Amino acid sequence: MMAQEHPFDAAIALQAAADGSFTGRTSAAYANMIGPYGGITAAQCIQAVLQHPQRLGDPVSLTINFAAALGDGSFIVRPRAARTNRSTQHWIVEMLQGDEVVATATVFTAVRRETWSGHEARMPQVPRPHDTPQTPRHGVEWLNRYEMRFLEGFIPKQWDGAERDDSLTRLWVRDNPARPLDFSSLTALADIFFPRVWLRRAKLVPIGTVSMTVYYHADAGHLRNAGQGYLLLQAQGQGFGGGYFDHGGQLWDEGGTLLATTHQVVYYKE
Amino acid sequence: MMAQEHPFDAAIALQAAADGSFTGRTSAAYANMIGPYGGITAAQCIQAVLQHPQRLGDPVSLTINFAAALGDGSFIVRPRAARTNRSTQHWIVEMLQGDEVVATATVFTAVRRETWSGHEARMPQVPRPHDTPQTPRHGVEWLNRYEMRFLEGFIPKQWDGAERDDSLTRLWVRDNPARPLDFSSLTALADIFFPRVWLRRAKLVPIGTVSMTVYYHADAGHLRNAGQGYLLLQAQGQGFGGGYFDHGGQLWDEGGTLLATTHQVVYYKE
Repeated sequence: MMAQEHPFDAAIALQAAADGSFTGRTSAAYANMIGPYGGITAAQCIQAVLQHPQRLGDPVSLTINFAAALGDGSFIVRPRAARTNRSTQHWIVEMLQGDEVVATATVFTAVRRETWSGHEARMPQVPRPHDTPQTPRHGVEWLNRYEMRFLEGFIPKQWDGAERDDSLTRLWVRDNPARPLDFSSLTALADIFFPRVWLRRAKLVPIGTVSMTVYYHADAGHLRNAGQGYLLLQAQGQGFGGGYFDHGGQLWDEGGTLLATTHQVVYYKE
Repeated sequence: MMAQEHPFDAAIALQAAADGSFTGRTSAAYANMIGPYGGITAAQCIQAVLQHPQRLGDPVSLTINFAAALGDGSFIVRPRAARTNRSTQHWIVEMLQGDEVVATATVFTAVRRETWSGHEARMPQVPRPHDTPQTPRHGVEWLNRYEMRFLEGFIPKQWDGAERDDSLTRLWVRDNPARPLDFSSLTALADIFFPRVWLRRAKLVPIGTVSMTVYYHADAGHLRNAGQGYLLLQAQGQGFGGGYFDHGGQLWDEGGTLLATTHQVVYYKE
């Protein structure tokens, strides 16, 4: 009997075309309010680069710009190596539905070599995942694809407009069901934070991420070590004004190894 | 008698071609060790978008990927609006010398509207610029284009390999000679930080920025307020390993208004 495919693997499955582009389909399992969860769109973009026959090395950075909500159905991802050096590569990626660009991205990949290392962003001292109760979340479908255990900075209990000065959130999270970590699932996880402006304002204003960057500090060995364990994710807002805010965040494995850092800028109304 | 053109304006001067591309020239005034200062390359890319006849709104985010050191001489910048919505626009930019891509970028612009605002990244309490001595810097030419007043985290006095745990740098800085701030000069300033890995290791290893992101929190009014004053810039490293490190940073005007946040990932040898 065949084991059932993990919903994440089904969502990032891409079919290669002869011209170097890929076809995929939006996944009902990762549906957001309007269109898919941005993290799954980002994962599909990086997956196209990872599957590209000319790809050199592992991801070091990704920036994805969300240009429009994807409609349910198929899409094309077109990764193009704009520049290939001896051990590094610069990719430009476009995601299209029909003739319309729905996302653009740039990806930098490199053959990484062992060097001096010393992460400065250290994991905060927090209770272990199994000592942290699971946080029930309801609403859009993609929330069911992650097991979340919030430590602080959960969604306001009441939308009463009581403002607060800081928007720090910390949570343990893993795929649900559990799945071994890879570059694509790490990318998807980087978009998991609910909008910092909701936390600051206790007000449910309409929002939409416009650009997200991920810097990868993990190599294949780090991903193997992380396995199916929980990741500690942290994010905090920086600037809020003129309809846009940004946040910075970090992702560590259970053992405290920094796997990635991430930033995004998000539109909000009012 | 004509007033002399500011070296920054000379450096970002672009000539429009009929096909929507622009021609520029590298500037000896902003020369780095190999090729130009990355900040000036970033400024030239955003300037091409700003000068594009189809451009809608002001910059909200920029990500530039440095694919190769530019050779002295002319270059082409090709901005393309991948998607234009009602009040937002997604740009893909390529910079070329001959047939070779030397940089790629994505830029998101938007017509910004007044909303709730409340910056969370607050300016630290530091001495005022005029109470902070100017820091002499020698070496590559572009350093002479900025007046820097370091508060902490200056380049190690001795390259003795004495490691330290943190890489926080704070400095006051402005163009030299002073020049009213605009989106292009703000972009150039975001790349001013010397490599965090030098500070951590007190070792002068070869480095090169591969990707830089800027999120703009300033609008035209904020830029006018900043004028020719100093900006407070702060940066700190996050992850260091496998040949790459990243840092996050903030830029405030003299009055403490957050103008931009920035991140970059940098290659280092050994």
